[in-house]
Amino acid sequence: MDELTGPVLIVGAGLIGTSIGLALAQRGIATYVRDADDTTARIAASRGAGSTNRSVVDPELVVVAVPPVALASQIAAALAEFPEATVTDVGSVKAQLLEELRLSGMRLDRYVGSHPMAGSERSGPLAARADLFEGRAWAVVARADCDPEAVRAQQALVLACGAVAVPMAPEEHDRAVALISHLPHVAAALVAQQLADAPQSHLALSGSGVRDVTRIAAGDPLLWEQILLGNAEALRGMLEQLRGALDALISSLAEGDGAALRRYLALGAAGAAAIPGKHGGVTVSTETVVVAVPDTPGALANLFGAVSGAGVNIEDVRIDHDTGRPAGHVELVVASELVEALMATLAGAGWHVER
Amino acid sequence: MDELTGPVLIVGAGLIGTSIGLALAQRGIATYVRDADDTTARIAASRGAGSTNRSVVDPELVVVAVPPVALASQIAAALAEFPEATVTDVGSVKAQLLEELRLSGMRLDRYVGSHPMAGSERSGPLAARADLFEGRAWAVVARADCDPEAVRAQQALVLACGAVAVPMAPEEHDRAVALISHLPHVAAALVAQQLADAPQSHLALSGSGVRDVTRIAAGDPLLWEQILLGNAEALRGMLEQLRGALDALISSLAEGDGAALRRYLALGAAGAAAIPGKHGGVTVSTETVVVAVPDTPGALANLFGAVSGAGVNIEDVRIDHDTGRPAGHVELVVASELVEALMATLAGAGWHVER
Repeated sequence: MDELTGPVLIVGAGLIGTSIGLALAQRGIATYVRDADDTTARIAASRGAGSTNRSVVDPELVVVAVPPVALASQIAAALAEFPEATVTDVGSVKAQLLEELRLSGMRLDRYVGSHPMAGSERSGPLAARADLFEGRAWAVVARADCDPEAVRAQQALVLACGAVAVPMAPEEHDRAVALISHLPHVAAALVAQQLADAPQSHLALSGSGVRDVTRIAAGDPLLWEQILLGNAEALRGMLEQLRGALDALISSLAEGDGAALRRYLALGAAGAAAIPGKHGGVTVSTETVVVAVPDTPGALANLFGAVSGAGVNIEDVRIDHDTGRPAGHVELVVASELVEALMATLAGAGWHVER
Repeated sequence: MDELTGPVLIVGAGLIGTSIGLALAQRGIATYVRDADDTTARIAASRGAGSTNRSVVDPELVVVAVPPVALASQIAAALAEFPEATVTDVGSVKAQLLEELRLSGMRLDRYVGSHPMAGSERSGPLAARADLFEGRAWAVVARADCDPEAVRAQQALVLACGAVAVPMAPEEHDRAVALISHLPHVAAALVAQQLADAPQSHLALSGSGVRDVTRIAAGDPLLWEQILLGNAEALRGMLEQLRGALDALISSLAEGDGAALRRYLALGAAGAAAIPGKHGGVTVSTETVVVAVPDTPGALANLFGAVSGAGVNIEDVRIDHDTGRPAGHVELVVASELVEALMATLAGAGWHVER
């Protein structure tokens, strides 16, 4: 695949735009950043995401990374300002955007939409990271009317950011994100809503379950309003399916139909298991080792020192997210074949270990 | 408050029963374990949760830790077998259980219900831990007809397990757990259900959001069927409220009413923020420091060694849960007033640090 040579102009210096700038700059590609807000652009530039110089000469690629409502106009403006450049965007929704662009009557062969599957509850250039996209899926939403050169330039961007290109048609992309991103967001918000005016004494019983279910509900309401409205059609169908399932569950509960309830719950367990694991498509067999750790400075250092001594790489780590206790547990997720060696080493060093 | 002197008999050697046995044994209290399955009882005993000797003489307290459907009969059996003992249980639902017990016509003054807010997706005696309850809320569901001696014995159990007693009436308890445990579980299962037959290409775009929302849906369907049925009345009201909110949200989406959507989302963000933080009732002001870490053995040990060198205690730690990448990020959550010192120390040691 061809490599990006640049220059690359990034329009919109938020979390995603600035992270792209940092990733490209790290590879020595000349980058420029623009933002409707000068201070935001300057912060991105100061972090090394690119130059704020407005006179960009012949960019190879323009990346439009603005909020959903501004995407169509900024993509159109970029196509007009740079008649030789490939233009891409990083928006969460594709079909409606394409429709808006087509209404403009412009030629769209140099426009190739895309969507990196990376983000954070935090936003803005200060939350950006050069390797935000490394190993992540990045949907490349090419169409039959795209210039093949433009598709290559877009894919070169994905490659330069260390991500994995996942080709998808616009409608398929929108259905996929409605399912794995927008539906969970709505469900999290609906559950969280019910907590908003709950008595403190009830909330005091909260454990890690309700925290995990509602975490993404903390996302920016203005951004999410735009995302949900932009994908209203695909999302509505799924929400209506969810409502159907909810109605059925309420009926089962009212009728005391345990077998039906169990079927819903088992289907839920199957769905949770269907989500691919940490290592992309490849499933690494892992096991969890639980270690008791005092809640004092140095304890984790000692633990990870001991783990390191065993020559074991940690796939994932989890510290109990709940109420304060003098000692906590660390769950170390490691490749299954390394569990025995790790447990022996830790136990030998005096740690209380369980699997 | 009085201390437990024992002996304590634990009926049901699953995750919760065995963990209670381990906690009490650690304090030198004589414990006995029973289970409908002999092997399960033997495993719990071999881990140190108590003796499997069937001749228990004059237990001070009997803890019934069996699945929801068996609670009423096992509580009644314990009250009959040990006419001097206090009997408690650790079930997730209280009002319906009390009704069943009252139907038996037995005197219930020695029975005091309770519910520790601790658990795991894992189950059974092998997943048990002596400090499972440390710092956790533990609902004590006393009633006007309870013997004060029995209430004291139950509270002494909570204390001996390192937990925090939260007194609650049966109906209030059931409403609280419907909200902060059963409703989130149903929502997670409903979202996860939709994923069960989704195309692999769509699931390939999954990020940490959908993983977090659906994690608890992996819980045992048989256990959860019993819990949901046992709290059907309180839960139904909340699910109907959720359905009302879902209906309204679907309408706003259909009408393109962005302002209404944003209100729902903002209410969700407020609800997510209403959940108390890690340190129980006390909210410690924390900040997140992001550190880039290569995905190799020893890297975390070096990092935590450096953190320890700065004399900083880590409140929480999070490693990116997503697709495999050659380098990852560790988010360290520390008390706000320690952030500057930590960042300076880490940067000085060559780590790439951001806040």
